[in-house]
Amino acid sequence: MSYKRLGQEDLNYLKSIINDSERILYGDDINEDYSHDELGDTVSYPDVVVKVTSTEEVSKIMKYAYENNIPVTPRGSGTGLVGSSVAIEHGIMLDTTLMNHILELDESNLTVTVEPGVLLMELSAYVEERDLFYPPDPGEKSATIGGNISTNAGGMRAVKYGVTRDYVRGLEVVLPDGRVVEFGGKVVKNSTGYAMKDLMIGSEGTLGIITKAILKLLPLPKKAISLLIPFPSLEKAIGTVPLIIKSKSIPTAIEFMQREVIIDAEKYLGKKFPDNSADAYLLLKFDGNSTEEIENAYDSVARICLEQGAIDILISDTTEREESIWKARGAFLEAIKGSTTYMDEVDVVVPRSSVNEMVEYIHNLYKEVNIRIKSFGHAGDGNLHAYILKDDLSEEEWERRMKAAMDKIYAKARDLNGQVSGEHGIGYAKKPYLMEAIDPTVVGIMSGIKRAFDPKSILNPHKIWQ
Amino acid sequence: MSYKRLGQEDLNYLKSIINDSERILYGDDINEDYSHDELGDTVSYPDVVVKVTSTEEVSKIMKYAYENNIPVTPRGSGTGLVGSSVAIEHGIMLDTTLMNHILELDESNLTVTVEPGVLLMELSAYVEERDLFYPPDPGEKSATIGGNISTNAGGMRAVKYGVTRDYVRGLEVVLPDGRVVEFGGKVVKNSTGYAMKDLMIGSEGTLGIITKAILKLLPLPKKAISLLIPFPSLEKAIGTVPLIIKSKSIPTAIEFMQREVIIDAEKYLGKKFPDNSADAYLLLKFDGNSTEEIENAYDSVARICLEQGAIDILISDTTEREESIWKARGAFLEAIKGSTTYMDEVDVVVPRSSVNEMVEYIHNLYKEVNIRIKSFGHAGDGNLHAYILKDDLSEEEWERRMKAAMDKIYAKARDLNGQVSGEHGIGYAKKPYLMEAIDPTVVGIMSGIKRAFDPKSILNPHKIWQ
Repeated sequence: MSYKRLGQEDLNYLKSIINDSERILYGDDINEDYSHDELGDTVSYPDVVVKVTSTEEVSKIMKYAYENNIPVTPRGSGTGLVGSSVAIEHGIMLDTTLMNHILELDESNLTVTVEPGVLLMELSAYVEERDLFYPPDPGEKSATIGGNISTNAGGMRAVKYGVTRDYVRGLEVVLPDGRVVEFGGKVVKNSTGYAMKDLMIGSEGTLGIITKAILKLLPLPKKAISLLIPFPSLEKAIGTVPLIIKSKSIPTAIEFMQREVIIDAEKYLGKKFPDNSADAYLLLKFDGNSTEEIENAYDSVARICLEQGAIDILISDTTEREESIWKARGAFLEAIKGSTTYMDEVDVVVPRSSVNEMVEYIHNLYKEVNIRIKSFGHAGDGNLHAYILKDDLSEEEWERRMKAAMDKIYAKARDLNGQVSGEHGIGYAKKPYLMEAIDPTVVGIMSGIKRAFDPKSILNPHKIWQ
Repeated sequence: MSYKRLGQEDLNYLKSIINDSERILYGDDINEDYSHDELGDTVSYPDVVVKVTSTEEVSKIMKYAYENNIPVTPRGSGTGLVGSSVAIEHGIMLDTTLMNHILELDESNLTVTVEPGVLLMELSAYVEERDLFYPPDPGEKSATIGGNISTNAGGMRAVKYGVTRDYVRGLEVVLPDGRVVEFGGKVVKNSTGYAMKDLMIGSEGTLGIITKAILKLLPLPKKAISLLIPFPSLEKAIGTVPLIIKSKSIPTAIEFMQREVIIDAEKYLGKKFPDNSADAYLLLKFDGNSTEEIENAYDSVARICLEQGAIDILISDTTEREESIWKARGAFLEAIKGSTTYMDEVDVVVPRSSVNEMVEYIHNLYKEVNIRIKSFGHAGDGNLHAYILKDDLSEEEWERRMKAAMDKIYAKARDLNGQVSGEHGIGYAKKPYLMEAIDPTVVGIMSGIKRAFDPKSILNPHKIWQ
């Protein structure tokens, strides 16, 4: 596939429809940030960045791009980790961060309608002030909702509440040729044709540009409590997780963490964590509408943890303590990043019954591959984030050992009937692992789906499997 | 598209792979039931019915059908209402009812793996005996799980628990050319390529044959209670529903019903309903893990109902009473069917804030169109089932008035930003209304998706939009 590179006449056209030259960046005006995402190992500059402000602008740009065979890459906050929002074929980057309006709160339908550039933290603050609740809770709060939908981000509360997909009721989408369509709506049930809305979710900007989303809300639970549970070893901590799931109590979140990551976070935030004396921790959250309801739920879980060798059960029931714990948890990625020269990540997901096996495998891998690996993650839903650290390795050694570690981790996840990505997506960086994991037949069908939406393949080329 | 009709050599081939002649029906052996579904207005016989027992058989049959351009229609219990499982182009009907095994209960992952022919009532009984819970609860308990997945059936508990889609973690699918693929798995999160599993759900047998499903379970709530709430008028009953949603309490189910439908059900079941003195009723269910938790939830809802003019609040907290109420509710469709000579249905879904407007519109329509219409439905999720009754109308008058009523109902649903189908699907009967409701652009994309799966269009032709 060969694409058009942008020239002066294309810029002139874009200026004519955008009508605000400050929202069009090209040449040296394009900040280096636009050439990569959060991890930075996939690098490519767009020819032009347009900070769009409306569906109409997106539609006009797509129409022009379609007619002129110009590749287009949508981008929110750029907090992705697999290169989904990097303009591999240059062309136009659509920056959606100015489409950041909360358009409507509909309390009769318990929905909120937002533009794609609204940040996750803005959305959750907005609805919580109104006693409502948007449950998806990825660690990266400065991600945009459009980005969360494009990767079907999951986050920490998925154990009880599910993932982003479960909270998207409707989408407005600009197709690659500029036409604007709606998938779904405010309805709670829908069996009206193929599941187009669900197909858009997790498609990483390859099928259409999301310009509006109708999100489902819940009533805000009246109370929440967290348990920080120190264990003498990683094995004991993580081995407890399948027992908790099997016990049929449903915490809101079950996270696991190791001392070394906690210490990184303390350094990064300049603040002490409530405890860092144990080798490994489980962090559990429970929410509900009464203290009794929550206590009933956590009592049995606390008992299981103690039976499995937990050193203590630290209960966090003040807002202050809650914040200090979860803020540290939210900073893990940045903290680990700050502890090394460079890193790469895996985001495998395995059945919950195998989460201990997967965590222990990753933990022991450094001996085999001789590279530092730190991991933490959503133990309760089997979704693990492992970070492979470059430290002072030479470029060559880094590439060799990092690849060896990745190959082994993805192979182990496959053995355990897991999947390549739980919530970060495939993007550009994980394509080889996707190709190893899925049937070529399925790749063929995905190509056909892509053609149905984007026959000229101008939207975010080279992503997922392309 | 022209398809091959089956001849003796095709039969011989099918016999060679099935190896059990009792599972192959043709000619006069094909029961009339196989020519239609539950409503019976779409009629066409397959050339042959094969009662398949394994993925391997399905795969071999599809491979043969693909090579020979023979249309294939999958069918479960035939309880559909829109003709999805009718063999419009004849060919082979795959009857999945013998693939009715529960293959695995995985308590560590809270999943159950089933064949597609397992009946909904079998599944719910099986898991509830083991203190687990499969929440989707369509009225038709003798439907197969394969059928439920193919229409994304919703049912009564969708207000709190969501629809079938929310409980399907993985699918084994035989593609039109016979290849067997897996979408999803036991994992809780997944962002690994396009949402193929979600695309299969609700595709009404047009993209592939579901041969295995991994379903998500929840712990069985320890207690449930129902409130039967009589109101002096339909308007007062249904007008209360948006207020309940807005109050932020979440009942498990909110159903509405009118006296005439209750009386039909009493006649049909030969059993008295706990009350039939009022014009209209709301039936609410609450579940949870303690009486207190449930009481807290229903107290505020009961207060709202009384403020809105409810005559009484009848609490049902014994298993016996629960059964008598919900059994009657489950029999409404059959009861209405028994009260007339013939009928047709609509299954519109509107935003919950508009459910009262939609119900009142349908209720008043008989004056305008001069035809009896009975309705009931999932008020809490905006999904209404309205039945248009033929009674003693001539065929011609029936066609005229029924069409006039349908046209008006679907137009009204569109005005209210609703959708054509909440859970029954589009099938063959609702195609014209789908075409009125969705953008031709979207139909074009759906065609492209269909081609990606089924380039020869042999799977369930003429359904949804085809």
